[in-house]
Amino acid sequence: MKKIRVSIVGASGYTGGELLRLLLRHPNVEIVQATSESNAGKFVHKLHPNLRKQTTLKFCSIKELENVDVLFLGLPHGVSSEKMEYFMSKANMIVDKGGDFRLNSKEAYERWYSYDHPHPELIEKFVYGIPELHRDEIKKAKFVASAGCNATATILALYPLYKHGLIDVERTVVEAKAGSSQGGVKVNPGSHHPERHGVVRCYKPYGHRHIAEMLQELDVENIHFSATSIEMVRGVSTTCHVFLKDPEMTEKDIWKVYREEYGDSPFIRIVKEKEGIYRLPEPKIVMGTNFCDIGFVKDVNSNRLVVISAIDNLMKGAAGQALQCMNLMCGFEEDLGLDFIGLHPV
Amino acid sequence: MKKIRVSIVGASGYTGGELLRLLLRHPNVEIVQATSESNAGKFVHKLHPNLRKQTTLKFCSIKELENVDVLFLGLPHGVSSEKMEYFMSKANMIVDKGGDFRLNSKEAYERWYSYDHPHPELIEKFVYGIPELHRDEIKKAKFVASAGCNATATILALYPLYKHGLIDVERTVVEAKAGSSQGGVKVNPGSHHPERHGVVRCYKPYGHRHIAEMLQELDVENIHFSATSIEMVRGVSTTCHVFLKDPEMTEKDIWKVYREEYGDSPFIRIVKEKEGIYRLPEPKIVMGTNFCDIGFVKDVNSNRLVVISAIDNLMKGAAGQALQCMNLMCGFEEDLGLDFIGLHPV
Amino acid sequence: MKKIRVSIVGASGYTGGELLRLLLRHPNVEIVQATSESNAGKFVHKLHPNLRKQTTLKFCSIKELENVDVLFLGLPHGVSSEKMEYFMSKANMIVDKGGDFRLNSKEAYERWYSYDHPHPELIEKFVYGIPELHRDEIKKAKFVASAGCNATATILALYPLYKHGLIDVERTVVEAKAGSSQGGVKVNPGSHHPERHGVVRCYKPYGHRHIAEMLQELDVENIHFSATSIEMVRGVSTTCHVFLKDPEMTEKDIWKVYREEYGDSPFIRIVKEKEGIYRLPEPKIVMGTNFCDIGFVKDVNSNRLVVISAIDNLMKGAAGQALQCMNLMCGFEEDLGLDFIGLHPV
Amino acid sequence: MKKIRVSIVGASGYTGGELLRLLLRHPNVEIVQATSESNAGKFVHKLHPNLRKQTTLKFCSIKELENVDVLFLGLPHGVSSEKMEYFMSKANMIVDKGGDFRLNSKEAYERWYSYDHPHPELIEKFVYGIPELHRDEIKKAKFVASAGCNATATILALYPLYKHGLIDVERTVVEAKAGSSQGGVKVNPGSHHPERHGVVRCYKPYGHRHIAEMLQELDVENIHFSATSIEMVRGVSTTCHVFLKDPEMTEKDIWKVYREEYGDSPFIRIVKEKEGIYRLPEPKIVMGTNFCDIGFVKDVNSNRLVVISAIDNLMKGAAGQALQCMNLMCGFEEDLGLDFIGLHPV
Repeated sequence: MKKIRVSIVGASGYTGGELLRLLLRHPNVEIVQATSESNAGKFVHKLHPNLRKQTTLKFCSIKELENVDVLFLGLPHGVSSEKMEYFMSKANMIVDKGGDFRLNSKEAYERWYSYDHPHPELIEKFVYGIPELHRDEIKKAKFVASAGCNATATILALYPLYKHGLIDVERTVVEAKAGSSQGGVKVNPGSHHPERHGVVRCYKPYGHRHIAEMLQELDVENIHFSATSIEMVRGVSTTCHVFLKDPEMTEKDIWKVYREEYGDSPFIRIVKEKEGIYRLPEPKIVMGTNFCDIGFVKDVNSNRLVVISAIDNLMKGAAGQALQCMNLMCGFEEDLGLDFIGLHPV
Repeated sequence: MKKIRVSIVGASGYTGGELLRLLLRHPNVEIVQATSESNAGKFVHKLHPNLRKQTTLKFCSIKELENVDVLFLGLPHGVSSEKMEYFMSKANMIVDKGGDFRLNSKEAYERWYSYDHPHPELIEKFVYGIPELHRDEIKKAKFVASAGCNATATILALYPLYKHGLIDVERTVVEAKAGSSQGGVKVNPGSHHPERHGVVRCYKPYGHRHIAEMLQELDVENIHFSATSIEMVRGVSTTCHVFLKDPEMTEKDIWKVYREEYGDSPFIRIVKEKEGIYRLPEPKIVMGTNFCDIGFVKDVNSNRLVVISAIDNLMKGAAGQALQCMNLMCGFEEDLGLDFIGLHPV
Repeated sequence: MKKIRVSIVGASGYTGGELLRLLLRHPNVEIVQATSESNAGKFVHKLHPNLRKQTTLKFCSIKELENVDVLFLGLPHGVSSEKMEYFMSKANMIVDKGGDFRLNSKEAYERWYSYDHPHPELIEKFVYGIPELHRDEIKKAKFVASAGCNATATILALYPLYKHGLIDVERTVVEAKAGSSQGGVKVNPGSHHPERHGVVRCYKPYGHRHIAEMLQELDVENIHFSATSIEMVRGVSTTCHVFLKDPEMTEKDIWKVYREEYGDSPFIRIVKEKEGIYRLPEPKIVMGTNFCDIGFVKDVNSNRLVVISAIDNLMKGAAGQALQCMNLMCGFEEDLGLDFIGLHPV
Repeated sequence: MKKIRVSIVGASGYTGGELLRLLLRHPNVEIVQATSESNAGKFVHKLHPNLRKQTTLKFCSIKELENVDVLFLGLPHGVSSEKMEYFMSKANMIVDKGGDFRLNSKEAYERWYSYDHPHPELIEKFVYGIPELHRDEIKKAKFVASAGCNATATILALYPLYKHGLIDVERTVVEAKAGSSQGGVKVNPGSHHPERHGVVRCYKPYGHRHIAEMLQELDVENIHFSATSIEMVRGVSTTCHVFLKDPEMTEKDIWKVYREEYGDSPFIRIVKEKEGIYRLPEPKIVMGTNFCDIGFVKDVNSNRLVVISAIDNLMKGAAGQALQCMNLMCGFEEDLGLDFIGLHPV
């Protein structure tokens, strides 16, 4: 089979490096270019030490982009929206890992990003990139906006319950725990190791931009979401406190709802065990994988259901999910090049 | 001044070692005995390596207890209730760090501990040991049941709001993040380093025994509490999602409520800054100290208030608070021997 | 191509789980059985949570072993030597991950293991399993004793220098830093998270059993080796201080020696950069991979050469190397099923 | 007793904050000023969050310095040597935590710092600040240059052996393991949490400036020293491989040598136990303390002695030692304000 030609725009950061790592082992892909304006001319393994001895690729500039089949974008907010027409001229298909085309209206960008979107006419061309919710649309799409990490972990945890109208949507509280790689490759005083080590730091008690994606996909007006940084490099875990409309609903009932929704999804695992150490999802078990593990426990004293999800923010929360989208767009197996099992112990 | 004579029953565990550490530097205390049935005869520094070159004390057995002024108890659930009459015969004052006398009724023990309390007649002799709520009672008390760590962190975070009836108590959701020392000194498969390292492990989605203390002290019927183990040895941090009855209430209003309640409390700090890295409470900043740092942020899009607290579970959550109680019971300064500032960075 | 049939004896520990993980993705392998006496009948994913949704295999007992093409052994010291004749009757080829057949004489077992080897006649049937040193022998071997983790990291770091007689072998000092997974799956007081967290614990200042392998393979009488546990789950890194006979030797000269020796080895990378963060080998960069990264720096003030190596102890130090051996024994590509690139950041 | 007046020049970094923390609890000290050019006017607790509710002190500029009894200096290399005459005009006694006056000759600065010392005439006025080696001189000194952290940990580990001529000084190899706070408060790409987390990073295989102090104090020509960053914020641990001239020397003999040298030193503990988890020194046990724990093990197969030391780099390696020097200079008890016991577990 002839390989498709793929390039990565914005490949010097963590999700760009992750995508390079994945594409280097993807059987149907030829990597054509990887851009980084500030590192143009350097070997990609100079920035991504795990890629040593794996590739002789060098970074180039966006200006030098060749025509390809698929272009992945990983750019700071505001950049891909400005240059999208150029990128569209260079590729048949685009997967944007950034946030510029995830929301489905100009108004949403104004509200959540305080951003006057320069190309509102392009917004509707993009499909929101969580395959478990939009698999059929993504298969037909040319342009996909891959979802944010906290959004992915929260939406996948809650979607079956919201879709089936099983909970009191006014009351949902979501606590996300996040690793340091979520903040990206750029150094800041709070990421200095002596300051970041061992933290339990509520960095976003409310107002996180990923909430916009949750509201859009879960089709509600509000969600009480907070995010806390903890001692971890990779990983997002959410603890979602939801309140069942029907207090008689059992865990078995809930299980059926999740299984029905996600039964065909290769990257969703329902994790809910009665014994052992790993009874519920944990991010370290999915590190390096594209899994989203989901588990839940019903409070026997109330109608509260605690739903827990865990992903690797650079994989299912970014590069892995983007590649999953590409696989669907190109008619490949959904998990092609994404079948890493995960490490234990780790 | 003549020093008071103090012994520690159950001194081989983490809170016992912590208490030894504190008492060795307390200016008004002479440590008489420290018990451990399985380690009787050994130097205490054999189990607590930080005590090397600090003391020549050896563990003894409970059977050998001498009469003292104050006895601290740190025993497995069920043991102090069984032997309390014996302990009362040995000391004028008792501070029990365990859970056997924290709840104020036989019924509560049946519900939360499935425990048929053998000495319900002694329950009412004990004052619940959070000085910030019961300072005057503790000053007059002979017997104090020092509060649990998760209970302390949650109650102190929420008490002013509950006392003043400011929130919708049906909706409160509390997420506690806990370190590994909370599990005590005993090894188990889940505490094995390769398995415990880097976890985000929801070990108690509902039904934690400390909830009983929260309900008792906050005087409510229910609280939606979950606890998650994270990569940390010492520390508890709670993120409390509460919903204000009056959505117009400002952060300044809230501040006044906390200041009024805790203004005289030497160990409560309101931490709420507009800039810098440590804008809200974090457990690592209070490690080794007796502080409970409390902060809060109001969600501008709803009536949700996010209240965050941080303590060292072995200090304000155990040994430090027990000593704070003793100081009050003995008429000493509340913070005597408890003025360690905390380390930074750490 | 017809797949070879492979079973794992002793599959409940960390290296057994790692091997299962690898074999599940190996294109030429069919996993037949995985034994664990104490877990017989349980699904393997009950002990290895990363294997969820990957296999329906259950543990069985050694007694139930079927005939296979290759048998991997991962047993406590003393067990494989006792049962080796039985295992040999069940498989054409055996790769023993344990220590019972690594040393090449009965005397060495007496000296280093204080062990009276029950089957000295079988010792010579085994080839020592570091492919970079014994590739041709392994290709022809039926029985391979895969090397120990500290031994692998040290031997690979030093072999080219020793082979070419470039250093004063009396003076070599090796400091190994090790993660907690090296201690295996069994809990002990020192592996309890509050005690193991953040340690710098010299657990073997001298006398480590792996030294026996180093002396054998480097063909010397002594090596000054110490091992220190640090905060890490996976990984071994050695810092080897060696003293060049010819003080005029340059780093370029040294490079040539390593390149000549390891140029054809897919899993050796010489890591030695002038700038950037990862200038020398680090275990986190090789986590999950089968690489042994090696770097060196010459002290400009003396004839000391500092050689640094890094491996994942469960991969190149155990399961990965065992599989690398199997690939060679079976005539497969050396890196088949072992091409994971590694994660960054992590 | 009248308190002495003390100021800190360069108080915004980690050792400055540590010194503030210590001086706030020192019974004989009144803190007069704390300088930081870039933070002048800010409360010190804005930079040192552990100091909240402990002081209302604000940073001022060096230009505003008042006359005091003791001045502590914590300045970048080159600054204190340039301004020393000004500082001398402001204080009776000076303790310089920086490196500008640790070496005892202009030539040493040229060799190790490539620095043309601007005030060589002041060098001899300074006593090298390790009290265990120079207690009597420090008691009489007006000016002390407090030792570097790696230097302190190494010198204290080796001094008794070198002083008594017990080892072959040509062969000593020292491996230091260091935490991230050693790098100071300033962010850099290598200190970014995702990059610094979990490292085993040999950052100085040779040529560390602290070697100059070791050579000076141990009175030798060379020492083979390497330093490796590991996952830790506070702490330095050295593993020193030394070779005894007399192979018959026993551990008991060695013990006597150390006890004789350090028997009166309140901050040296010989840690060497036959059982238990903490058999040898570990930095986490001394975190927050001024202890230097020292232990050793003799290799039964050779004349190698492995000596291990552990300190908190910000305490005995910086601020604690500086205060210990001040105590001696002022005629106070050596451990006044430095008697923190340390935490366990941690």
